[in-house]
Amino acid sequence: MSGNTFGTLFCVTNFGESHGPAIGCVIDGCPPGMALCEADIQGDLDRRRPGTSKFVTQRNEPDAVEILSGVYEGKTTGTPIALLIRNTDQRSKDYGNILQTFRPGHADYTYWQKFGVRDPRGGGRSSARLTAPTVAAGAVARKWLKERYGVTFRACMTQIGDVVIPFESWDHVPHNPFFAPVADVSALEAYMGELRKSGDSCGARLRVTAQGMPVGLGQPLYDKLDADIAYAMMGLNAVKGVEIGAGFASVTQRGSTHGDSLTPGGFVGNNAGGVLGGISTGQDLEVSIAIKPTSSILIPRDSIDVAGAPTEVITKGRHDPCVGIRAAPIIEALLALVVMDHALHQRAQCGDVHVDTPDIAAASRA
Amino acid sequence: MSGNTFGTLFCVTNFGESHGPAIGCVIDGCPPGMALCEADIQGDLDRRRPGTSKFVTQRNEPDAVEILSGVYEGKTTGTPIALLIRNTDQRSKDYGNILQTFRPGHADYTYWQKFGVRDPRGGGRSSARLTAPTVAAGAVARKWLKERYGVTFRACMTQIGDVVIPFESWDHVPHNPFFAPVADVSALEAYMGELRKSGDSCGARLRVTAQGMPVGLGQPLYDKLDADIAYAMMGLNAVKGVEIGAGFASVTQRGSTHGDSLTPGGFVGNNAGGVLGGISTGQDLEVSIAIKPTSSILIPRDSIDVAGAPTEVITKGRHDPCVGIRAAPIIEALLALVVMDHALHQRAQCGDVHVDTPDIAAASRA
Amino acid sequence: MSGNTFGTLFCVTNFGESHGPAIGCVIDGCPPGMALCEADIQGDLDRRRPGTSKFVTQRNEPDAVEILSGVYEGKTTGTPIALLIRNTDQRSKDYGNILQTFRPGHADYTYWQKFGVRDPRGGGRSSARLTAPTVAAGAVARKWLKERYGVTFRACMTQIGDVVIPFESWDHVPHNPFFAPVADVSALEAYMGELRKSGDSCGARLRVTAQGMPVGLGQPLYDKLDADIAYAMMGLNAVKGVEIGAGFASVTQRGSTHGDSLTPGGFVGNNAGGVLGGISTGQDLEVSIAIKPTSSILIPRDSIDVAGAPTEVITKGRHDPCVGIRAAPIIEALLALVVMDHALHQRAQCGDVHVDTPDIAAASRA
Amino acid sequence: MSGNTFGTLFCVTNFGESHGPAIGCVIDGCPPGMALCEADIQGDLDRRRPGTSKFVTQRNEPDAVEILSGVYEGKTTGTPIALLIRNTDQRSKDYGNILQTFRPGHADYTYWQKFGVRDPRGGGRSSARLTAPTVAAGAVARKWLKERYGVTFRACMTQIGDVVIPFESWDHVPHNPFFAPVADVSALEAYMGELRKSGDSCGARLRVTAQGMPVGLGQPLYDKLDADIAYAMMGLNAVKGVEIGAGFASVTQRGSTHGDSLTPGGFVGNNAGGVLGGISTGQDLEVSIAIKPTSSILIPRDSIDVAGAPTEVITKGRHDPCVGIRAAPIIEALLALVVMDHALHQRAQCGDVHVDTPDIAAASRA
Repeated sequence: MSGNTFGTLFCVTNFGESHGPAIGCVIDGCPPGMALCEADIQGDLDRRRPGTSKFVTQRNEPDAVEILSGVYEGKTTGTPIALLIRNTDQRSKDYGNILQTFRPGHADYTYWQKFGVRDPRGGGRSSARLTAPTVAAGAVARKWLKERYGVTFRACMTQIGDVVIPFESWDHVPHNPFFAPVADVSALEAYMGELRKSGDSCGARLRVTAQGMPVGLGQPLYDKLDADIAYAMMGLNAVKGVEIGAGFASVTQRGSTHGDSLTPGGFVGNNAGGVLGGISTGQDLEVSIAIKPTSSILIPRDSIDVAGAPTEVITKGRHDPCVGIRAAPIIEALLALVVMDHALHQRAQCGDVHVDTPDIAAASRA
Repeated sequence: MSGNTFGTLFCVTNFGESHGPAIGCVIDGCPPGMALCEADIQGDLDRRRPGTSKFVTQRNEPDAVEILSGVYEGKTTGTPIALLIRNTDQRSKDYGNILQTFRPGHADYTYWQKFGVRDPRGGGRSSARLTAPTVAAGAVARKWLKERYGVTFRACMTQIGDVVIPFESWDHVPHNPFFAPVADVSALEAYMGELRKSGDSCGARLRVTAQGMPVGLGQPLYDKLDADIAYAMMGLNAVKGVEIGAGFASVTQRGSTHGDSLTPGGFVGNNAGGVLGGISTGQDLEVSIAIKPTSSILIPRDSIDVAGAPTEVITKGRHDPCVGIRAAPIIEALLALVVMDHALHQRAQCGDVHVDTPDIAAASRA
Repeated sequence: MSGNTFGTLFCVTNFGESHGPAIGCVIDGCPPGMALCEADIQGDLDRRRPGTSKFVTQRNEPDAVEILSGVYEGKTTGTPIALLIRNTDQRSKDYGNILQTFRPGHADYTYWQKFGVRDPRGGGRSSARLTAPTVAAGAVARKWLKERYGVTFRACMTQIGDVVIPFESWDHVPHNPFFAPVADVSALEAYMGELRKSGDSCGARLRVTAQGMPVGLGQPLYDKLDADIAYAMMGLNAVKGVEIGAGFASVTQRGSTHGDSLTPGGFVGNNAGGVLGGISTGQDLEVSIAIKPTSSILIPRDSIDVAGAPTEVITKGRHDPCVGIRAAPIIEALLALVVMDHALHQRAQCGDVHVDTPDIAAASRA
Repeated sequence: MSGNTFGTLFCVTNFGESHGPAIGCVIDGCPPGMALCEADIQGDLDRRRPGTSKFVTQRNEPDAVEILSGVYEGKTTGTPIALLIRNTDQRSKDYGNILQTFRPGHADYTYWQKFGVRDPRGGGRSSARLTAPTVAAGAVARKWLKERYGVTFRACMTQIGDVVIPFESWDHVPHNPFFAPVADVSALEAYMGELRKSGDSCGARLRVTAQGMPVGLGQPLYDKLDADIAYAMMGLNAVKGVEIGAGFASVTQRGSTHGDSLTPGGFVGNNAGGVLGGISTGQDLEVSIAIKPTSSILIPRDSIDVAGAPTEVITKGRHDPCVGIRAAPIIEALLALVVMDHALHQRAQCGDVHVDTPDIAAASRA
């Protein structure tokens, strides 16, 4: 309830600061009996890891995860799974000057006003580094959802700054540092090279999907599946917009076009993005997000200091020129956490509901 | 936790179906000692009410609210405030044929698959009618926030289908049936007239703001203020997209442009939409949403019946050709509920935090 | 979270005051597809109802329940079930003098200090009348648990004041006004007659059990089944003590005596009261509670008025001389609500766990 | 919601197993700005620590706590405080035989039936070792409550097996290994010596109080202060009974005796145990608990094995002959956690309520 736990049945409680001794999370509610080891989690962490290309922050640490509890002889026991990641590449001095001023576009000012105290080292709790435990918890959820229902999660970059990226194939995504679904990323490399030289930063747009979704996940009124997806995505650092299915394009659509027809062989189209009335249709979940440009830039900005006097701020240290570049594994994890929570909820409330009506989305996949 | 309660400290539990005996909600957590009577709530309900113009559903009922508890001698007592609205204009027969088929774009299919049973009368629980208790609860939150902090909430239409609506003034909003911030709505009238003749429906885009915001509301990691706003908005029927501040436009912005500078007299610009790091800056909250076209249309659509066989669906009965038209008071209420919950949370966690740094957003309003 | 919702998956939100227009509750999380009508609930309400004998308050009202939502064509739909009970026998004038003074042993003083405002009519929210919605919600839980698992709940009086009541048979309980498991209640009638004449009140001790329990309900650490039972029971008005199984007698037991042996045919003994490590064993749940004497008595008491000055208080109006007498149906309902919540939770977290080890408690019942 | 988080605003999420790599907790909701270091926590951990006398388990480890997050330059930041305690004295082999059988009175059987898998090493998650993180979190709550309101918590032993311990003075409690409020503990030493020789175990009774309580903490209906206290206490391993104030003695009291009179100088008596109507009166909280005899004893017991066949169990390894002996610091911590959560809740809901009526309990302390 105090803002650091995600989910209600698959609960992930996140802790840590960018330059404290460690970050991590406690997962409460993971079903018992699932095989789990560090290697199941490390893969997604490695995909999110900084320092892997010249287009992301040069902070470099292994982000090695340790399972502290909840697993016995390689299987989950149904008790809390605590995951620990030690911070190893802290450089607190880089951030010393932040303490007296507030970076425009950053959480410095709001933390200060809210708490009256803040940890300025690397942004403290507001650092994107805190997405690592989310990714780790997401890996656990993904494993369970895949084994139980066959659900898989994928994300890719669809736009960096002014460069719109066409969708060629999911196969390309793992093979370039931008998570771009294209074979040739030379235009992106050039764009990012220019950007870095300018000392500025840019925004990005990403897409994340879930495939193999069970039908019937989500609650009718407030805890709709799409509402919880929007919550998860908008809660990610730097996100300023979220779309489900047709998103903002639905404003200019007509009802006769927007509503996906139902046929015995499946839905025709997916303007719904996989959700109707807050409940999953069994179609792919389709989500798109907008990420704002990184706030920490080398260009001087007007600001105030803690006494309220005007000053100028330049942010040195190691920063991503486009925070969207490392976002793909994070939004996959977030989507998985949302689906996981609703999957458990559906078991609680509805158990094994059987209707004679076929699951047409599953039919279309068969 | 089962999807019908909104909020964690100012908790609104909603109940009812479109054509059942009554709808309503229970508000738990309203601070004691606030003057409250039905008239404080009825005004917002009347703004949301159907049957008020030829551009919305002709279902016509007074939506008169009754306070059942939580108020003694005109003041809130700190105990649950139950609000009851009797349904009076049910026409269950209009909807009889829905029981055997699934309307494309509607919740019929997903409810059926989830629950194995559904109330087909007017969409049952999935009807937009269930936003009335939300509006009623929002009115209570708005009153407290206004009296305590001076926060006010306003929403307006910014686009209907293909017609983009320029912002002229908030003053025009109450004076036309579209909640449009323009003096002359003849173009909208013409557009909607054509649409109704065609039997089709269209989408809409709306904007909602909070003014006079306290600085410091919101939680650092998961329960960010903007995350909860996205949750609230995406949870409203038919919403497919949510933006905070610059929203999707931030994708093509540079960091040097996007980050709002801080000055002793206030922020320069509001790309943040009033939230940094998940915490309110004191600037106006700025939110924009996309609403899809109404699913219930007079044009025949392909679908399946409950046995899975192909069929054709035409939706008769009374429906809004553009559900966005009545959305303004609802999104004001939703935004108020989010702010209210965070305001109480801030009191719990941080009490009266005092920092020497001035609240620059408040300064700019003074 | 604000104290008026019971449960986390089967959530009961209670509202109302003793002398307001109505009391009731909203049940969120009831599984869909269960047959339900008012008659399923009214029976338990009638057992709790005041005015049924000369040994309880003479307030007399039918406590007729109306289902406002969540049921369609006689079956639960999985959406919130709102239950409404109109108050019909308010006599606000009886309680007028309470407003200026605080009755010893009553909630008057604490409500006043907490909220700064209180509804003095019949104790307002602190009245035992608010147990009626709890009983109504409990009836819904009991029906589901009986149909799904065969669990049944029973309570009886084991002591009134100084009179210890031996256990003869559950069969006697419905046939006397004291819920006593004995054929001859003349001693109780005599005792209560004397008490009424004296204008004083007395305490009571009750026992409540669940039979046919599934094994495996309850959480390991904090949300233990027995912890939640203690919470539920101690939360009932006037309860000052709770025991599970051997209770306080276990202080003087030895480990070699206390621990119930396991045999293929069942447990030997039930010192555990049906719970080990916070999780149900499948044995009967065995709970005992202590209820304090009614605070509202005709004998003058020392107190203070709202200005803090000493005064004398005599409570007139209609009151139970022993509130324990009507407690049996309430504690059955509370126990059912606890079991229900854990049953749903077990479905969520553990689904259908199968182990080769037999359920020995079920074996002993077969 | 999955049973490993305590509290709703001051949330403690506990993790770990008796013989895993580490145990610990994450505290979410601690107000910012409080001075905090490991030494503030270590003291209470040391009081709970095993191996400190011959009357408790000989497992011996330092239980050194490490603060992983939430503190910057010696002050809490309002973000999650993660506490880590490495296990250092695991002897998994001692417990090997437990895997195939179920100890009577222990959680072995219920964990197995619930989860289908269990960690048998030292009882895994069901070990009393998991109270260490609770004690650590309680130390943080105690510090805040003392600094903010002057509330202090104390517990003592009042009975071990058949030996009733008179209350002489709180001053004696820290000076004997039994937490007994008497100067001479030779009778207890003799009793425990006999018990150990017999290979058996015994129960205990303890008392815990809070002094300097604010008036007005607790919720009216379900989340009553006493209900939450009962939940906390009954949730502690081996507890079978909980009393508030007069407890079970109130059964034979009359209303004219039980209700504590109010005077301008304070309450006369404390049968209420500091709670009326679920809300604190400002009197001392008075709680008493019954602890059952340890289940792990050297005397052979009848049981079954995992195949359901009858067998005999003898528990070797290191165990407390009376688990109540180390319970005092734990129940102090639990009471502190309950009060802390309600203190924050009161800030949220009621802010600073001022009534003219004096706080008579505070007056009596002055």
